[in-house]
Amino acid sequence: MNFEAYNPTRLVFGAGSLAKLGEIASKYGKKALIVTGGNSVKRSGVFDRAMESLKAAGVSAVECSGIEPNPRITSVKRGADIARKENCDVVIALGGGSAMDASKVIAAAALYDGDPWNLIAHGQENWAIPTQALPVITVPTLAATGSEMNCGAVISNDETKVKSFVSTECLFPKVALVDPELTLTVPKDQTAYGVCDIITHVTEGYFNGVDGTPIQDRFAEGVIINAIEWGKKAVADGTDLEARAQVQWASIVALNGWVQAGVHMVPPVHMIEHALSAHHDITHGAGLAIVNPAWMRFAAKSRPERFAQFAQRVFGLTPDGKDDLTLAMEGINAYVLFLKEIGCPTTLAEVGIGDELFEQYAKDAALVVHDEEGNLLGRPPMNEKDIVEVLRTAL
Amino acid sequence: MNFEAYNPTRLVFGAGSLAKLGEIASKYGKKALIVTGGNSVKRSGVFDRAMESLKAAGVSAVECSGIEPNPRITSVKRGADIARKENCDVVIALGGGSAMDASKVIAAAALYDGDPWNLIAHGQENWAIPTQALPVITVPTLAATGSEMNCGAVISNDETKVKSFVSTECLFPKVALVDPELTLTVPKDQTAYGVCDIITHVTEGYFNGVDGTPIQDRFAEGVIINAIEWGKKAVADGTDLEARAQVQWASIVALNGWVQAGVHMVPPVHMIEHALSAHHDITHGAGLAIVNPAWMRFAAKSRPERFAQFAQRVFGLTPDGKDDLTLAMEGINAYVLFLKEIGCPTTLAEVGIGDELFEQYAKDAALVVHDEEGNLLGRPPMNEKDIVEVLRTAL
Repeated sequence: MNFEAYNPTRLVFGAGSLAKLGEIASKYGKKALIVTGGNSVKRSGVFDRAMESLKAAGVSAVECSGIEPNPRITSVKRGADIARKENCDVVIALGGGSAMDASKVIAAAALYDGDPWNLIAHGQENWAIPTQALPVITVPTLAATGSEMNCGAVISNDETKVKSFVSTECLFPKVALVDPELTLTVPKDQTAYGVCDIITHVTEGYFNGVDGTPIQDRFAEGVIINAIEWGKKAVADGTDLEARAQVQWASIVALNGWVQAGVHMVPPVHMIEHALSAHHDITHGAGLAIVNPAWMRFAAKSRPERFAQFAQRVFGLTPDGKDDLTLAMEGINAYVLFLKEIGCPTTLAEVGIGDELFEQYAKDAALVVHDEEGNLLGRPPMNEKDIVEVLRTAL
Repeated sequence: MNFEAYNPTRLVFGAGSLAKLGEIASKYGKKALIVTGGNSVKRSGVFDRAMESLKAAGVSAVECSGIEPNPRITSVKRGADIARKENCDVVIALGGGSAMDASKVIAAAALYDGDPWNLIAHGQENWAIPTQALPVITVPTLAATGSEMNCGAVISNDETKVKSFVSTECLFPKVALVDPELTLTVPKDQTAYGVCDIITHVTEGYFNGVDGTPIQDRFAEGVIINAIEWGKKAVADGTDLEARAQVQWASIVALNGWVQAGVHMVPPVHMIEHALSAHHDITHGAGLAIVNPAWMRFAAKSRPERFAQFAQRVFGLTPDGKDDLTLAMEGINAYVLFLKEIGCPTTLAEVGIGDELFEQYAKDAALVVHDEEGNLLGRPPMNEKDIVEVLRTAL
């Protein structure tokens, strides 16, 4: 257990807290760039309420709209150009993970003279890791990525079909303004994909961290148990504010560094999913619902006792004389049943992906997070053949 | 669930990390005030190692030693005077909770012209809550108070026999440098009192927070389960570095705001214990071992289902048709058994406290944290008669 933990983002959480946006933003400047995705924030009235709050606090705003579900580096460039041209002091992300991730990189790119793609890890020798950024305020409208309270961002390059990440301290949002009311209108399928994303953030560390982290284990299990319980409720009734609040809270703690402190996690499932969604415009959470169980079945073989613990503590399954691997597989089956119950796809066929590009995905997945032999980091490390094997079981 | 969460302290955790002190301190200045308690850091060689690390990094240091186990405002004044006279840039706490708490208030008092006692809550009308402080680095040598990574401090006034607190953002340490090796020499009794302190920080929020915090419940239970498991090991064998590291980590998460985020905790047990240890020089953790079970038996009567959950999830007890209150009491009994097993006192008689000043303690306990009628805040709120009743059951 040797590690650092640091997260200076101020979290302001609660139903109705959107009304505080102007007051909060005014601490960081006079002019804001508001980064949004599709039209849902306009239709729901959230955009107008945000603008009113800013106006009342004397903060003017320009918009960078149309951030894609898998945000592209071209959109980051566009946003950074607006921020510079309009002399914006602060970047406000109003949307899901894509708007938040784009906002962080826009905030860094606005203060960086080179090509913004240099800021993103993609196997280049001289990765220009950002050292400064405009202040960012995140206002999530979806409970999923946890991007609201961490310093990571995932960006896609449509030209090279590479989807990769950056994670560095200057990208921590100053404030995460989290109002679960904003998620009340999220459709059932996106709600479910969000829940799957939340759970996968936790399972990555739980299954791919170091040994000897029993407190973090309990934290992780607690988040998963509640994401399952309240996720079902939020999918069943989108207007259930308590369920929405619990899922939103789970999304934050799943990836703000608390559950993973000292775990030294690596995220093989995310790396494989990124390779898929760089080539196919599937929702990240849906991709995870397909890849994670397939990966779990593969990984359980080399560490059945860990997956048996998952089966017992998360799903309340009992050993009853079974060996660890049998119990482990029962736990994974229970997880797949849950994913199906909330309407997630669990096979590649369901999202129309075949095996044509498996070799390419396997190569892309190990592009950045790999060991000296080029194996994708994780427990166990995976070579390209392993990744193809996992994908094949997900067909 | 409406709340804010914020903790900008950088945690550097791990065996051997004391060697990083100089490098870390040099980021905050050229001259440090080192605040220490008794002679244990000298005897153990920790003080010399800290000085060497500082020297190697070009940081000079002056010392403020002799901070009492229940740190006094007179010591804070003394430390602030040294810091001012010697133009210290940074305050380094090297010791247990008392050195850390004193350091925070010294750091604020060094930049405050009035009487430092004004900075501490004690029922005064114009509480001078600190707004600025010198940077503080905490280096705990005991796993107990959690002061290393939070913005709170508890200070005693020997003249007025009042022990009270301050908690405000400018008192967050810049860095918590936590090296579990430094706790290897802590004696059995102090180790046990520390474990009791850790658990009580968590139970305060668990039993006195708002309803509807299921994720935080799991976090709290996870900390308690592990503090019990690893606490026993650390008491049994003080040289067990893994046990020391787990207990140290439990102490941090028990009171750095993660477990309590959104819980809106109030700490009635701490308030009652502070009233005791203001009049008697007992170790805070030992006082908590006495007061907490007595308080739990009192509070369980008004919310048995909550204490039944504690019995089930922490101690694995099963309802088997019992009513909640019966199960609750069994859980509290299990907790008392654990306290006895690690050698904590669980009655006032064991520490030589009688009932002579019960009325006074009851009055002191509700001095700051009270409702409009003067009741000590908690679930349930307690009037002076209630507090006396709890103390009487602890005789």
